[in-house]
Amino acid sequence: MKASVGVFGATGYAGREAVRLLRSHAYAQVAFTTGSSEGHVPHEAAIERRADAYLLSLPHGVSASYVARLRQAHPDAAIVDLSGDLRLKTAADYELWYGHKHPQPELLGVPYGLSEVFRERIRSARVVSNPGCYATSALLPLVPLLRAKLVSAEDVIVDAKSGATGAGRSPREDLLFCEVTDDFSAYSPGRTHRHVGEIEAALEEGTGQKVTLAFCPHLLPVKRGILSAVYLRSPASVAELKQALVEFYSGAPFVKVGNGKPPRLSDVVFTNECRLSVHEAGPGRVVVFSALDNLVKGAAGQAIQNLNLMMGWDETAGLL
Amino acid sequence: MKASVGVFGATGYAGREAVRLLRSHAYAQVAFTTGSSEGHVPHEAAIERRADAYLLSLPHGVSASYVARLRQAHPDAAIVDLSGDLRLKTAADYELWYGHKHPQPELLGVPYGLSEVFRERIRSARVVSNPGCYATSALLPLVPLLRAKLVSAEDVIVDAKSGATGAGRSPREDLLFCEVTDDFSAYSPGRTHRHVGEIEAALEEGTGQKVTLAFCPHLLPVKRGILSAVYLRSPASVAELKQALVEFYSGAPFVKVGNGKPPRLSDVVFTNECRLSVHEAGPGRVVVFSALDNLVKGAAGQAIQNLNLMMGWDETAGLL
Amino acid sequence: MKASVGVFGATGYAGREAVRLLRSHAYAQVAFTTGSSEGHVPHEAAIERRADAYLLSLPHGVSASYVARLRQAHPDAAIVDLSGDLRLKTAADYELWYGHKHPQPELLGVPYGLSEVFRERIRSARVVSNPGCYATSALLPLVPLLRAKLVSAEDVIVDAKSGATGAGRSPREDLLFCEVTDDFSAYSPGRTHRHVGEIEAALEEGTGQKVTLAFCPHLLPVKRGILSAVYLRSPASVAELKQALVEFYSGAPFVKVGNGKPPRLSDVVFTNECRLSVHEAGPGRVVVFSALDNLVKGAAGQAIQNLNLMMGWDETAGLL
Amino acid sequence: MKASVGVFGATGYAGREAVRLLRSHAYAQVAFTTGSSEGHVPHEAAIERRADAYLLSLPHGVSASYVARLRQAHPDAAIVDLSGDLRLKTAADYELWYGHKHPQPELLGVPYGLSEVFRERIRSARVVSNPGCYATSALLPLVPLLRAKLVSAEDVIVDAKSGATGAGRSPREDLLFCEVTDDFSAYSPGRTHRHVGEIEAALEEGTGQKVTLAFCPHLLPVKRGILSAVYLRSPASVAELKQALVEFYSGAPFVKVGNGKPPRLSDVVFTNECRLSVHEAGPGRVVVFSALDNLVKGAAGQAIQNLNLMMGWDETAGLL
Repeated sequence: MKASVGVFGATGYAGREAVRLLRSHAYAQVAFTTGSSEGHVPHEAAIERRADAYLLSLPHGVSASYVARLRQAHPDAAIVDLSGDLRLKTAADYELWYGHKHPQPELLGVPYGLSEVFRERIRSARVVSNPGCYATSALLPLVPLLRAKLVSAEDVIVDAKSGATGAGRSPREDLLFCEVTDDFSAYSPGRTHRHVGEIEAALEEGTGQKVTLAFCPHLLPVKRGILSAVYLRSPASVAELKQALVEFYSGAPFVKVGNGKPPRLSDVVFTNECRLSVHEAGPGRVVVFSALDNLVKGAAGQAIQNLNLMMGWDETAGLL
Repeated sequence: MKASVGVFGATGYAGREAVRLLRSHAYAQVAFTTGSSEGHVPHEAAIERRADAYLLSLPHGVSASYVARLRQAHPDAAIVDLSGDLRLKTAADYELWYGHKHPQPELLGVPYGLSEVFRERIRSARVVSNPGCYATSALLPLVPLLRAKLVSAEDVIVDAKSGATGAGRSPREDLLFCEVTDDFSAYSPGRTHRHVGEIEAALEEGTGQKVTLAFCPHLLPVKRGILSAVYLRSPASVAELKQALVEFYSGAPFVKVGNGKPPRLSDVVFTNECRLSVHEAGPGRVVVFSALDNLVKGAAGQAIQNLNLMMGWDETAGLL
Repeated sequence: MKASVGVFGATGYAGREAVRLLRSHAYAQVAFTTGSSEGHVPHEAAIERRADAYLLSLPHGVSASYVARLRQAHPDAAIVDLSGDLRLKTAADYELWYGHKHPQPELLGVPYGLSEVFRERIRSARVVSNPGCYATSALLPLVPLLRAKLVSAEDVIVDAKSGATGAGRSPREDLLFCEVTDDFSAYSPGRTHRHVGEIEAALEEGTGQKVTLAFCPHLLPVKRGILSAVYLRSPASVAELKQALVEFYSGAPFVKVGNGKPPRLSDVVFTNECRLSVHEAGPGRVVVFSALDNLVKGAAGQAIQNLNLMMGWDETAGLL
Repeated sequence: MKASVGVFGATGYAGREAVRLLRSHAYAQVAFTTGSSEGHVPHEAAIERRADAYLLSLPHGVSASYVARLRQAHPDAAIVDLSGDLRLKTAADYELWYGHKHPQPELLGVPYGLSEVFRERIRSARVVSNPGCYATSALLPLVPLLRAKLVSAEDVIVDAKSGATGAGRSPREDLLFCEVTDDFSAYSPGRTHRHVGEIEAALEEGTGQKVTLAFCPHLLPVKRGILSAVYLRSPASVAELKQALVEFYSGAPFVKVGNGKPPRLSDVVFTNECRLSVHEAGPGRVVVFSALDNLVKGAAGQAIQNLNLMMGWDETAGLL
């Protein structure tokens, strides 16, 4: 019999993607979904519903309290929180980046669900905080290269471009078709986007190095996908850097290090893959491209990958 | 009576844009257009057609010989060449970046038509080489900051994104609607795109500094527009950098330095403007955004701006 | 000195387009704009502002009361109402199609601003009701053919497709970029869309014939443009039908009857043109294509065309 | 052990889709693919390759000769031809619609693979001609209603809109991204598109009625999907018409008759479904919407559905 999964927030793009992916999962099935529209259980009413696992795709500031209540009501269940609430390590850090007090600071410190990097901690956890989409895109190339000390921690630039599902499904004038199509723009430039705090915290945890990131996200007129150009200083050759990535991800089913051409969004959308490529960009300077689907490897897919690890299932179940 | 302009290569996107812009020009009008389809004079037959000015939007490797023949046939006419043939300063440099011998090396050395930077040389020239679209996008923010010695010449990164008209109108499988829509990718990463040579040559001429650029162009699923993120090292504050740009472009009708939000493509498409904004991006690191329409300020608009300078007309004629 | 125009509702797509078009108008200029965001006068406060003309681009149900108050405050001013409030001829008809009582029934009966058809009435009016975008697209081919009795009034089918600016700028989930791009759908099929009532009323007024229309609008993933396929029964040949259209529009600067290929949206966007073409579609059956820009000939452009007529200016002022 | 399938023409959009779908097929697997690029067997060399079945996605005029040679070399194999070569019933008809002599007239008369309509003939055939995408979209609503004599055969109008993959992957200027995006147009209007002949032939075979169709295809700026609006005369009510469709498709896993809202492309893309809905459109007039994915139910999916029937497998294998 398949394990039961409750999906909180199944009307947003990420929650809906989780439901779609779970349909072909060999060991899990959706027990219920929550949301405010017809066909869904109200969030509040669902807390008492018993399931083997819960995926939460709720707004930050709201999600943590559901995690806390689900944990109390169902202490044995596996919980993956897709919101930003549990990604930072301290309440002070949270307040700095999110602009309000953390609703459940006692929950902070749960494993950060970057599956390939924190796999062992995730396996033994009951609650995991799923990374942000931009953060996943930046961390997968950065962690191995920084750990191997092949690139400078002083000079890390991430120029990231995301499809519009990354901005969510709330009706906002700036997300209307007529405002996004035929257009392209940067937003939250420099060091103002919340994922800066998340990426730097994860880099410190994952590599022991303090990095001060330059990060510029952009809004692409496409639905899905993130492509990041990561500019790095390195005395190493492109071949050495590539080799370090290949080795780090040798046992990882979803991270692929390419030869030759940079990855395109169309290579990765509707998959749980992150594709990387390394290129020379001047003396002592390289650029690493990182492409993934923001709704899959950047959200629902990685959440299921983490669930697979927490439940002891094949890491790729439901994701191939 | 209006001056007569012959437009060579009027069936491509840039040539067609030149024809469109000239329709509302107060002092110039199109005398003839060349192209291989109906309604256009064949290129060859048009060389003898007398006009006050010629705009050439022909493929590189082909354009220079037309410039040479037009110059001989009509020594008093103003000629603006939109191809890459005359943008580099030496035949050796051309061979390095274009992969074949220069067809008319005796023409090299004509003014580089970055209107705001080389305005005086352009005014007195009979032949001007119009800059590439990416090059214009990169040079307009870089020249003033490097000249003012406010940013490091050692550490210049340009992450550029262009609409698909920049790739031209030739039928190519990779430019089909079904290959470009819903997608996004980098190409010619690092230092492999021809505009690297062009930008570095223009920076040396315009600022006296040798720069080794990291440059990554990307293909956006939009028709028009380039947005570049230029990452720079600088001991100066954002306010000082902004001030340097404002001063440099104080008399320039088409370059605007913004406050606050980064420029969007929709701010500039169908205009001859380039919009710039400066943002902090970490300690000693800034990012400058530069947005323009690749077919207007990046091609046909700047060509007309140069023509206006060469003919002694108001610099903005036909461009407001 | 240019005449002054107040634009009510200048933050929506149609109002903004009116402001854009008036910028290049030889005889008129914008005196003020109303809207709820910064840089605009609040609607209420603007009623007292004296101008030579007013364009109202406000929601239906709201607009009529502003028309009434402007008329009282400025009896000599020309007023063009772009809403649906004054398009139908009776309060009963309005209630039928709009689902609520008419706010100012005493205003009903003002000329219907289909410029080419009701030109003389418009010239002498102080208040004109600007047609809907779909209605304009359907009426321009239908009126001449029905008047000439060349097509059957019993069998009129309009399959219409519109860009998303036609749905307005209010934040609605179904208009988000991620809901509209890559998609296409019909809505309000058969006889349920409000423009059915408007088109039938205008056909009766303009041709003396009662028509019962089949009308299916669709939402295209583009910003601008309407293309309608109008299927008609006719004993006449394509050449005769075409001739009837050519004659009817011989003095009309904005309606073009094509040869050969059906018109594309790209032929008409950003222009005030409506392009028509006639094609055989089986024995006794023809299809007429009608293409226009929903924001220009379908809204702001036609409003200015009507204003030009009302003010005695050249009909094309600001529109070429 | 899975049956082996050779896919001819696997670099085009339909052939590639067939390969993608076969990846998850329970009873079949791809043995080889042909095409001119790397990784594919040349068409010519593949004729001798033994397989249990062959799918041919080759250009019309070329495909029939491959069918003939495969049939001779492998008389027991199942062959599904996705080209137009075998869709019409006579060589004269073919010459009329395709403009050249039929290359292999002896093959004409194989079953027409509209799976839901000709299921029994398909089951016992060794060669099946797969329907065109527009034809499938039009026939699925028309066959049941005409057979039940609920609608007039004299008055059938199909206004169809297709995504750009329907036009194939050959580099053509009119299919470039910059020519298709932001645009919409009709082509081959009236009775000039090849699918008119195909639809009329299939209607005669499937319903015994001679229909003279009005058919207008349009090019949508999307990759996938066809939405057709089928306008019909009928004395029956919408409920009766709907009931006739529901009954006809009661055993059909892929045709769904909806309630209420017309189907959207996003309801059907990446599925083998055709969704239908019926709506009133005036006295005695109805409109039926039909939505499908042109590459799945309109090409590769239906080809696999036919293969499933021919091989005695579950009709839905590889298609859910």
